[in-house]
Amino acid sequence: MKTVNLTINQLLDQIAQFTSQETKGVTRLLYDEHWIEAQKFLLELGQMIGLDSGFDQVGNVILTKYGIENDKSVITIGSHIDSVVNAGKYDGIYGVAAAIIAIKELLAEYGAPKKTIQVISFCEEEGSRFPFTFTGSKNLINQLPDDIYQLVDKTGESFEKAQAKAIHALKSRFPLVKALLPTAYAEIHIEQGPVLERLNKEIGIVTAIVAQKRFTVTITGKSNHAGTTPMWLRIDPLKQAVKMINQLEVIALEIGEPFVFTVGEMSISPNASNVIPEEAIFSIDIRHTDEKELQFFEELIYKFAKKQELELDGLEIEINKWTDVCVERMNETYIEALQAICLEKQLSFNLMPSGAGHDTQIVNRIAPTALLFVPSIDGISHSPKEFTTAENLEKGKTVFKQFIYDLAY
Amino acid sequence: MKTVNLTINQLLDQIAQFTSQETKGVTRLLYDEHWIEAQKFLLELGQMIGLDSGFDQVGNVILTKYGIENDKSVITIGSHIDSVVNAGKYDGIYGVAAAIIAIKELLAEYGAPKKTIQVISFCEEEGSRFPFTFTGSKNLINQLPDDIYQLVDKTGESFEKAQAKAIHALKSRFPLVKALLPTAYAEIHIEQGPVLERLNKEIGIVTAIVAQKRFTVTITGKSNHAGTTPMWLRIDPLKQAVKMINQLEVIALEIGEPFVFTVGEMSISPNASNVIPEEAIFSIDIRHTDEKELQFFEELIYKFAKKQELELDGLEIEINKWTDVCVERMNETYIEALQAICLEKQLSFNLMPSGAGHDTQIVNRIAPTALLFVPSIDGISHSPKEFTTAENLEKGKTVFKQFIYDLAY
Repeated sequence: MKTVNLTINQLLDQIAQFTSQETKGVTRLLYDEHWIEAQKFLLELGQMIGLDSGFDQVGNVILTKYGIENDKSVITIGSHIDSVVNAGKYDGIYGVAAAIIAIKELLAEYGAPKKTIQVISFCEEEGSRFPFTFTGSKNLINQLPDDIYQLVDKTGESFEKAQAKAIHALKSRFPLVKALLPTAYAEIHIEQGPVLERLNKEIGIVTAIVAQKRFTVTITGKSNHAGTTPMWLRIDPLKQAVKMINQLEVIALEIGEPFVFTVGEMSISPNASNVIPEEAIFSIDIRHTDEKELQFFEELIYKFAKKQELELDGLEIEINKWTDVCVERMNETYIEALQAICLEKQLSFNLMPSGAGHDTQIVNRIAPTALLFVPSIDGISHSPKEFTTAENLEKGKTVFKQFIYDLAY
Repeated sequence: MKTVNLTINQLLDQIAQFTSQETKGVTRLLYDEHWIEAQKFLLELGQMIGLDSGFDQVGNVILTKYGIENDKSVITIGSHIDSVVNAGKYDGIYGVAAAIIAIKELLAEYGAPKKTIQVISFCEEEGSRFPFTFTGSKNLINQLPDDIYQLVDKTGESFEKAQAKAIHALKSRFPLVKALLPTAYAEIHIEQGPVLERLNKEIGIVTAIVAQKRFTVTITGKSNHAGTTPMWLRIDPLKQAVKMINQLEVIALEIGEPFVFTVGEMSISPNASNVIPEEAIFSIDIRHTDEKELQFFEELIYKFAKKQELELDGLEIEINKWTDVCVERMNETYIEALQAICLEKQLSFNLMPSGAGHDTQIVNRIAPTALLFVPSIDGISHSPKEFTTAENLEKGKTVFKQFIYDLAY
């Protein structure tokens, strides 16, 4: 492997080869054979550019350059190596690639840093193999629950067994280590949304990762013949669902940005064109950086449900909230520093929330964090069509590298 | 079999035994073994009460009492023998049972009629085995298309083969005949709706079988991440579907009775709570006795679709109309006669449209028709829970019998 003048795009193309051949695009799930080869590749790359290269007990790859000053700072940078099924070549791994190339260039240009720099390729963030997310970053901050080891994937293999095999494969050539606890964390990621492209901005500086609530709403009415049941005798759960969603949409648009309200799942039963439905089930996903606004909207959902139940005898509405994640705000000093870097380098930027989750939100629980975005063409992610121009990948790395330099040198 | 003092309920219980044992309630599909046994049973019953008993080329059972006057009147009465899967014991077969008991009693009380009375147990009306409806009544009026013989059921058996086996089974004991063309037709059926029960009426006198249109609406937008795509950049087909259904519902309620507007089918894809849908598909079923109102509503659907497409760049709405059935009005003289009978017998009645289809609407193309309803408890039909009280079954028969008497004696 030649590492001189290696571009991000070249490195991403190399890593994209570690994928299942049975799917479109990239599929590299936690602890599978492609995941093992990808992490081995990064460990080798770390060794080649002079980093202490090892992995921890959950398979996070940890590439460390100890600082020459004997203080306790641990500037941690990275992102995740795993993908969803049929993914693109950017999500997660761009942050790992940018971190590795940034440190490689910094070492070549300025020698050893004053503070320790720790690059992490997190084992897992997506939750695509086992029903659990952020395994890597949760392990880093020592908040990984014990009960995940019994989780099984679609084939019935347990998390514990899959991990044991992967760790065994890595152990044959690389040392098992324990990561240092970060005192600062920075991550760069593709936006996975259309905002930067639409606003024609080169860099996204994330101010907060949004709070998020998800609900399942089940409306039960009375199934009946679509021809013989007059409108006034109907208890139609679909019409009630439609009414509720429509009312909520009006309020959602009034609340305005960055609030988002999505109904992504909907099903009705018995689902026949000539039968009034018995039941309508739909999902609600709401996100905002302001938890008070989310709380307001949540209360509205309950209010509308109660009102509709009271208005129509026989109607039942059950609401199950199954996700409630609080907001994580990025460090304000870092946000200012990143703006200054963009101005200095004459790169356009947008201060913005992240509507998607990232490892940053986990590490943010114990350390100040920074999160950068580069534009996703057409906002597409989790798809082979995911695309960011090579130019934008490099621009993102330039800002990221300067930020690391300012922290560590 | 004892036929003296046989009640409708007893006869329905006997016929309900001709059913698949593998399902709940009654399942007797066109030409299956239970259907054959049921039609044989009716042929035997016809013979016992002195009717010319035979079946035609599609398996309609035809029980005839020739009139003593040598005119060309053929008073035809009956309904269908087939059921849906997991049906009750009333739908269709009640009309056959009431017709047989009415003629049995008329013959016992008054002897041979002046005009010919022809009882028909139509082979099929529901379309539950092959994707085709009203086989029996369409054959009666010589409007059965040739291309149904290649239709296949779920097991791959063709209509042609299934029919040949059934006809063979009937032929061994009963004569193959051709029905006489009706000069009048009367049918009694369970309401399959809640109106008579809610209005506390004993008899429904049907004025018309509604016109009906069915559509499939496909709305295509743009799938995207529910967190990272701001509301202003979304092309969300579910939100557009909800908007359209809600607007149409407002108009539907303004149009008022007997208009009905049902969305019975709905699906969205990819159908994940954290993904803005790419596509929303839903059905529209509209019915009214006034075809102009239906036409108005149909145009409204196209107008709303066009407007929504124009308002949101990238949105596509495709509307496919796949059913368009015109209204069939029952004979006005018969409607008046039936009202007079109810008044005379001190039975409460309701003039009403039928929102469901019946064999009457087919025979109505060539002859004046009458259609009577009895109350369905809770409006339930096509279910083992289908129920009409024995008392109401008898009251319906009383009116029906008087009507036949007035026409044929």
